[in-house]
Amino acid sequence: MLAKKKNKNKDTTTEKMTSLCYTTIMKTALIQQKYHGTKAQTLIETTRHIAAAAGEGAELVVLQELHQHEYFCQSEMTRYFDYARNFKADVDYWGKVAARHKVVLVTSLFEERAPGLYHNTAVVFDRDGSIAGKYRKMHIPDDPGFYEKFYFTPGDTGFEPLDTSVGRLGVMVCWDQWYPEAARIMALKGAEMLIYPTAIGWFDHESDGEKRRQWESWITIQRSHAIANGIPVLSCNRVGFEPDPGGALEGIHFWGSSFVCGAQGEMLTQADTESETILYADIDPDHTRQVRDIWPFLRDRRIEKYDCIGHRFCDSDPDTRTRPSV
Amino acid sequence: MLAKKKNKNKDTTTEKMTSLCYTTIMKTALIQQKYHGTKAQTLIETTRHIAAAAGEGAELVVLQELHQHEYFCQSEMTRYFDYARNFKADVDYWGKVAARHKVVLVTSLFEERAPGLYHNTAVVFDRDGSIAGKYRKMHIPDDPGFYEKFYFTPGDTGFEPLDTSVGRLGVMVCWDQWYPEAARIMALKGAEMLIYPTAIGWFDHESDGEKRRQWESWITIQRSHAIANGIPVLSCNRVGFEPDPGGALEGIHFWGSSFVCGAQGEMLTQADTESETILYADIDPDHTRQVRDIWPFLRDRRIEKYDCIGHRFCDSDPDTRTRPSV
Repeated sequence: MLAKKKNKNKDTTTEKMTSLCYTTIMKTALIQQKYHGTKAQTLIETTRHIAAAAGEGAELVVLQELHQHEYFCQSEMTRYFDYARNFKADVDYWGKVAARHKVVLVTSLFEERAPGLYHNTAVVFDRDGSIAGKYRKMHIPDDPGFYEKFYFTPGDTGFEPLDTSVGRLGVMVCWDQWYPEAARIMALKGAEMLIYPTAIGWFDHESDGEKRRQWESWITIQRSHAIANGIPVLSCNRVGFEPDPGGALEGIHFWGSSFVCGAQGEMLTQADTESETILYADIDPDHTRQVRDIWPFLRDRRIEKYDCIGHRFCDSDPDTRTRPSV
Repeated sequence: MLAKKKNKNKDTTTEKMTSLCYTTIMKTALIQQKYHGTKAQTLIETTRHIAAAAGEGAELVVLQELHQHEYFCQSEMTRYFDYARNFKADVDYWGKVAARHKVVLVTSLFEERAPGLYHNTAVVFDRDGSIAGKYRKMHIPDDPGFYEKFYFTPGDTGFEPLDTSVGRLGVMVCWDQWYPEAARIMALKGAEMLIYPTAIGWFDHESDGEKRRQWESWITIQRSHAIANGIPVLSCNRVGFEPDPGGALEGIHFWGSSFVCGAQGEMLTQADTESETILYADIDPDHTRQVRDIWPFLRDRRIEKYDCIGHRFCDSDPDTRTRPSV
């Protein structure tokens, strides 16, 4: 089944840069979960689901954002930094799970790099349990109930896809999913699919219309990354209600709706908004290639005119904005 | 009603750079049309629709791509370059229409710049008939039935929004709609809405599934530009069947479906796939501002890590791709 083994020899890495390296249909699984009250109980559940997914033939398993714990960013409390102190042990644990079930595993962990310096970090394991690489969440949100700038130092990994035995994976995390730049860079570096562990939900006090607009925009922006770049997108979201421990807000109703879409942004499968689910999808690299060949958006990019992307805002000097005469 | 008049004095243009300059709800109209067999008859129809839209209170009217003619890019024939030779007269005509009905008017014309040098050019007129500016289509497609690289030199305007009495407009054309870079740059330069005259449709021989995927991806990618940038998107598409004059393919069934969505990508209104329609939508700048303030994607961009966007593909030297150790 596997078209490509991970190559650990730096001297022969050139062949790794060929994109679309997986050549057969691959079964993937996304594990959409609730938080089960304790880290220990949650790990038991997650590990059981991974075993089940592997038993069904999944080669790639994706977990949701910060899957070991409650979504603790609802309030700002230093005690939650304790969650990050077991990062090395957590990495050991998930590596063993990946190896035991022979799956490529995308995890989302809270990393202590030094006291007072923490990251929201996706660690990707190959099927032998080795670390394929990690990605530190680059775009950090901060809005009521999602106080991530208190907890997470913005990542310094850049947008580097990770090579695994099932292909080159463009792994990012949650808020990154709103940034077309991030998806594009992963694709330009040869990512064969985009993967987003995420934790997003509603506040119950919001109107039904607002809830629908937020939910649809979250789906739409991620499907758009598939379309713009001609590669599948896998998005794994948390589910269930979690109260705000600080009591400032009621709590977050995580909306689940994990999904996999193909290279045209077409929905292959999607979970509901309430259930714990293992969501399976077959990814077909032939379809991806065909889509890219007939709608070759990468062919026509006007790269010499994209300088503004590297600026915060392009308002510095209006007089330099030239207009053609008709 | 109008919050801002076009300012033609270069010395006082600084105030023009403030984004979201329109402050009251604005009525917009998109004119989704068929080709009526001749340019003369088509102009009569379009002009009648503009008058009707103005009568309904529209302040901004958007026409579809190359609205004066059939979509001639279905085959490669030099005789179609004759269509571009009246560019100056066309500009005069539409300027007078804009002035007569006191609307800001977005047109899409075939521009002869020199023999053998042609552009697919959007000319935007202010409500007094003056030229607010023009945009030459930057991304040029070429696929069976859409042989635009034969006809159109890629634009040299870059992505510059155009100031009008109803605000700063990010006008692009058709294939540009697949490029998140283009939408982002317009937003970073202060565009208050994105506008796409377009001409896209189905080949009848394609499967229903493929037709649906293409149609949905076209809608999804444009809604995503609204979401990523927090501004409304107006997309005006052609409708009706037009045979391939070269006979290589049967012809294109333009799928209409013109739409306006708000700053969360929410559909405000959408036309059907078959009818000639004047599609009205009210655009609310307060909603746009609120969306941007609560989901401030521009705040968190990692501009120091976006260099790869300016490259064709980032495969030059795999050994320079560094990975952090865990």
